Amino acid sequence: MSRIAARRRVTRLTAGERRTSRPDQLAVEEPLEIRVLGRPLAVTMRTPGSDFELAAGFLASEGVVRASDDFATARYCSGADADGANTYNVLDVTLAPGVAPPDPSLERSFFTTSSCGLCGKASIDAVRTSSSFEVAADDLVIDAETLVGLPEALRAGQDVFERTGGLHAAALFDGRTGEMLVLREDVGRHNAVDKVVGWALMNGRFPARGCVLMVSGRASFELTQKALMAGIPMLAAVSAPSSLAADLADEAGLTLVGFLRGRSMVVYSRPDRVVDAGLGDAAAPIR
Amino acid sequence: MSRIAARRRVTRLTAGERRTSRPDQLAVEEPLEIRVLGRPLAVTMRTPGSDFELAAGFLASEGVVRASDDFATARYCSGADADGANTYNVLDVTLAPGVAPPDPSLERSFFTTSSCGLCGKASIDAVRTSSSFEVAADDLVIDAETLVGLPEALRAGQDVFERTGGLHAAALFDGRTGEMLVLREDVGRHNAVDKVVGWALMNGRFPARGCVLMVSGRASFELTQKALMAGIPMLAAVSAPSSLAADLADEAGLTLVGFLRGRSMVVYSRPDRVVDAGLGDAAAPIR
Repeated sequence: MSRIAARRRVTRLTAGERRTSRPDQLAVEEPLEIRVLGRPLAVTMRTPGSDFELAAGFLASEGVVRASDDFATARYCSGADADGANTYNVLDVTLAPGVAPPDPSLERSFFTTSSCGLCGKASIDAVRTSSSFEVAADDLVIDAETLVGLPEALRAGQDVFERTGGLHAAALFDGRTGEMLVLREDVGRHNAVDKVVGWALMNGRFPARGCVLMVSGRASFELTQKALMAGIPMLAAVSAPSSLAADLADEAGLTLVGFLRGRSMVVYSRPDRVVDAGLGDAAAPIR
Repeated sequence: MSRIAARRRVTRLTAGERRTSRPDQLAVEEPLEIRVLGRPLAVTMRTPGSDFELAAGFLASEGVVRASDDFATARYCSGADADGANTYNVLDVTLAPGVAPPDPSLERSFFTTSSCGLCGKASIDAVRTSSSFEVAADDLVIDAETLVGLPEALRAGQDVFERTGGLHAAALFDGRTGEMLVLREDVGRHNAVDKVVGWALMNGRFPARGCVLMVSGRASFELTQKALMAGIPMLAAVSAPSSLAADLADEAGLTLVGFLRGRSMVVYSRPDRVVDAGLGDAAAPIR
């Protein structure tokens, strides 16, 4: 059985008709524990596969890893199970010399404050001060015609979704050529993005300047944060963004695109990065 | 401005056509910190509204609160902000006398083990031993005709989705009559479910026996866990479940329904709870 899709006998039922039993494929969900230097850091429910990328991307999103070299090695823990088996669900990461391991309070460091003043503004400030990369004003100009082609490329690459209907997808595109650099699928959309960011980190594309991060669903604050932490200047989503995603994109100078469907889109921040050659706009960005 | 939907000026753009600028509405996302007896427990990015229910449901999902009386009071922290304002984003919960406050390691207690043996089976066992309620074999028999009517009822109740396209929804239905008892929307689907469970807790419907929990998206392990912790015998989703959601439902005797669309559905576990009066099946559950 594949580790990505699991076979299962199900009952198909239509009201007023006889039910049928048949085999079906489900997207696999399994826990992954990420450890750093042997110490447990986080557990995420993910679809197995690209786990090293997931761990690398997660650590980049958290600001622990800021360059390819910071992520030294990763290995699956083995032999500690009751029957000595390796579950391939526990990954131990070693950081390069001089890279500070994460703070024990890391998981909550982006969001919490010491006072009762917790709010969206504080969350945005926390991300901005944690980010290693400024999204440069002149990073990336993309033609509208290229942009409207990305959802179809994303959809065409979703092998496992095709079989299971159960996976989110994230992909990184070269903003100049529209070429898809990498696509990853996962039951959790934050995992799919972490895998893509981890791929960039492990393949010399970090920070991912000049790229577009495209996601199959909605754009949340957390996904916008992940784009910023990877230095990506544009996040495009098939569905709606949240208010805080748009606020963060606005403050940080990232272009946030939503409802990218058919030949249309809604741009929530920095629309000047989208030009339209069909209207003679190719030479210079427009407002 | 509403706390649920935020107004924002956006750029609408269709390739090859002149762009337009117009006001739009976005689903609000803000952090909520849940404290228990003054100690921070968790931060979740949620849509404001029904925060007391969200806190109650979260604590029920974690096994801290096991009955309505366990949740004593909740109040927004005020005055500790830099300028003395109440952000309405920090909620402090008081438990009834005798109710043990959560363990500091609570957030991870469901998933982690002391060994490298972390796997889906261990996650399922952890939920099963934490749950206060057994889903009884004879709890709930629902007619297929009633079941196929739920998605339309859910959709009709999604006020904010209608305006923003950016919210997940969860609703609790009476399995016998098909009546919708409560519907909640949120940028996070786990939050929408926590709000529904919290409503049940605060309105004398906990555990929610005889009910169907319906969600607008996919069914993950975590959502299945929340249904079980609230004693709900059936989880129905518009989209696909994950493998681990189906495994947990199977082990715990919960009926898991996916792809509930039009007049059809796929049943992944315990299909005997769905009968079909149109086929003369109303009297007794069938295989």
